[in-house]
Amino acid sequence: MERLDILGTLSEEAGRLTRPYASESMRRANGQVAEWMRAAGMTVRQDNVGNLRARFEGSDAGRPPLLLGSHLDSVRDAGRYDGPLGVIVALAVVQRLHNARRRMPFALEVLAFADEEGLRFGSTYLGSAAAAGTFDATDLDRTDADGISMREAIRRFGGDPDRIDDDRWTAGRPLGYLEVHIEQGPVLEERGVPVGIVSAIAGQNRYVLTFTGEAGHAGTVPMDRRRDALLAAAEFVLAVETEARATPSLVATVGQIAVRPGATNVVPGEVTVSLDVRHADDPQRVAAARRLLEEAAHIAKRRNIDLASRQLSESATVQCSPNLVAALSEAVRDLGHPVVELASGAGHDAVAMSALTDVAMLFVRCKGGVSHNPRESVTEADVAVAIDVAGRFLELAAQP
Amino acid sequence: MERLDILGTLSEEAGRLTRPYASESMRRANGQVAEWMRAAGMTVRQDNVGNLRARFEGSDAGRPPLLLGSHLDSVRDAGRYDGPLGVIVALAVVQRLHNARRRMPFALEVLAFADEEGLRFGSTYLGSAAAAGTFDATDLDRTDADGISMREAIRRFGGDPDRIDDDRWTAGRPLGYLEVHIEQGPVLEERGVPVGIVSAIAGQNRYVLTFTGEAGHAGTVPMDRRRDALLAAAEFVLAVETEARATPSLVATVGQIAVRPGATNVVPGEVTVSLDVRHADDPQRVAAARRLLEEAAHIAKRRNIDLASRQLSESATVQCSPNLVAALSEAVRDLGHPVVELASGAGHDAVAMSALTDVAMLFVRCKGGVSHNPRESVTEADVAVAIDVAGRFLELAAQP
Repeated sequence: MERLDILGTLSEEAGRLTRPYASESMRRANGQVAEWMRAAGMTVRQDNVGNLRARFEGSDAGRPPLLLGSHLDSVRDAGRYDGPLGVIVALAVVQRLHNARRRMPFALEVLAFADEEGLRFGSTYLGSAAAAGTFDATDLDRTDADGISMREAIRRFGGDPDRIDDDRWTAGRPLGYLEVHIEQGPVLEERGVPVGIVSAIAGQNRYVLTFTGEAGHAGTVPMDRRRDALLAAAEFVLAVETEARATPSLVATVGQIAVRPGATNVVPGEVTVSLDVRHADDPQRVAAARRLLEEAAHIAKRRNIDLASRQLSESATVQCSPNLVAALSEAVRDLGHPVVELASGAGHDAVAMSALTDVAMLFVRCKGGVSHNPRESVTEADVAVAIDVAGRFLELAAQP
Repeated sequence: MERLDILGTLSEEAGRLTRPYASESMRRANGQVAEWMRAAGMTVRQDNVGNLRARFEGSDAGRPPLLLGSHLDSVRDAGRYDGPLGVIVALAVVQRLHNARRRMPFALEVLAFADEEGLRFGSTYLGSAAAAGTFDATDLDRTDADGISMREAIRRFGGDPDRIDDDRWTAGRPLGYLEVHIEQGPVLEERGVPVGIVSAIAGQNRYVLTFTGEAGHAGTVPMDRRRDALLAAAEFVLAVETEARATPSLVATVGQIAVRPGATNVVPGEVTVSLDVRHADDPQRVAAARRLLEEAAHIAKRRNIDLASRQLSESATVQCSPNLVAALSEAVRDLGHPVVELASGAGHDAVAMSALTDVAMLFVRCKGGVSHNPRESVTEADVAVAIDVAGRFLELAAQP
């Protein structure tokens, strides 16, 4: 918990936690975590994209290693657990082995990913994609708010942007990837359990929609002559809520809205909104997204507004490995806790890592389901359970 | 028309017209207009706030002068007629007298105001308020987007910020103030007439409303657990439209909306919207604004959202002088055009000048009612009518 508090102070902004990819605060976080990793008996290196990769050797060099990890970057004005918790829990598991002078038969690799949130470049899973070998080199041309390219940011952070391919895992297929993460939702708290086992990570579609009407003077254009783009966008925002409430387990969100010209005394001429649609069942997600785009088109047509929509991303649901889920469940049961399986509505590095190996995730109960917020909170007791479960999971995975 | 084209090129931004208060482009506009003023036989000075004040002497020093004017600043990405048209028409009227070696019995003062739109400092009627003696000295502490105070901007523009009071008109009560302006609405185009006579300038109330819910992860917070501030704001935006459509001649607009945190994958925690309400009948305006604030409170309560609202400004309807309106009507009739009276939904420098003297306004038909937009358009023929009407108005005003 102290380590998470320390990482929580490493920020680009005074008084709040904002730790973007390849920033100075990320450099300090990597330095601090690398020190802890070495103290736990691990060898550490920083790869080209900026991930920390630490290895704790196993006793049997012939067995594929198990990967453990999460990310060290944050959103703006973040909490201190989303990401770092998974790294610090993995570290604690290794530390216990090191303190007890024990080795697992397989090596353990702890991966501290440099970018999952995408705050700086609007990318996601940058670090885990590099490790999994699915890094998209065209992302190197993205620029941040100051016009600095990702290529240049990587160089300044000590990596070689032309050698991201070298970050790819090449030592055969690992045993699997386990990520511990706060739930970011209210299910475990409602069920009264410290940890939960993730069955699947919900697929998600993201869109940007632009409603274009006609800007005009707010004092002189009569109501019946207006083509107010914000009115169409407002109807759409409410339609998104209606659709999501009508479809069990669907979540759909408009999180961004921008108005042009954007003056008190000007009728909005153009409004851009984001749309994020998620469901653990792929056909239901796809159908809901289609209905929402159709509804946007109807609203725009009825209001004589032009509509342009663009899909930013689509990711299918990732199923967690049944074998790893079974082992995690057994570990939870062995420690005397009820087994609760749940789908993750949030994306995680495990999504990218699923391209490389079997994945599993252990969720830790968090207060009020709050995340991406300084009020993120977990209890020391629940984190201790997560460390115990992960340790027991290793023992079960080591059995023949 | 050529002069308006020339002024349309003086901008802070390449490729579009943006001429804020006390900017380099405003300095060039003032220089250009001052040159034209002198060529029309006028003496010219720039006052402390930055207004150009040009005087064309009359034949009878005992008669109070008539003021003519409008503003030279613009909104962002503006058209070329909103403001400059009134200055250039006034100039043309004087130019005709000068060319004909004629004088009116009273002096003519042409005022080219330095700030009406308030683009740079969020102020309005800065120039005309200084001339009318209602300048608010606390405005001097306002800062622009670069952190430059109005006080410093005035100094750099050549004025003395501590002597704005000296800009106040002190030579007795003028005969009146006449402002020619594009209509910025569709009425004259629909009625098929080149010019219209303003009966009153509608009062307006401006507010900022902040809806505060709770930010959360777009993938993990179920729909029924959300306190999404954008959903409340969207309902309010549509309620504003409903109220305005139900009340004849009311216009109400949400022109700005800002979401925090404002990320695709985060449920909006806080949304701020602007509200602008106008009606030429004061009691109707006040009642509509009150109903809208009540509706916002109902929406917020129903959604378990906190609401804070703040009134930014309130201005009562300004009635144009019946005598001047009668003279303008006679001038229009004399020139063979139908007399159309209409209320102005937009605020104008005439509002500030009404604190000093009787005011009148002549609207010029504009294409599609479009303003605050590069597509602002007037015809040369309509502008010629406006110059003729203003000239005839002077003759009528000169009659005993």
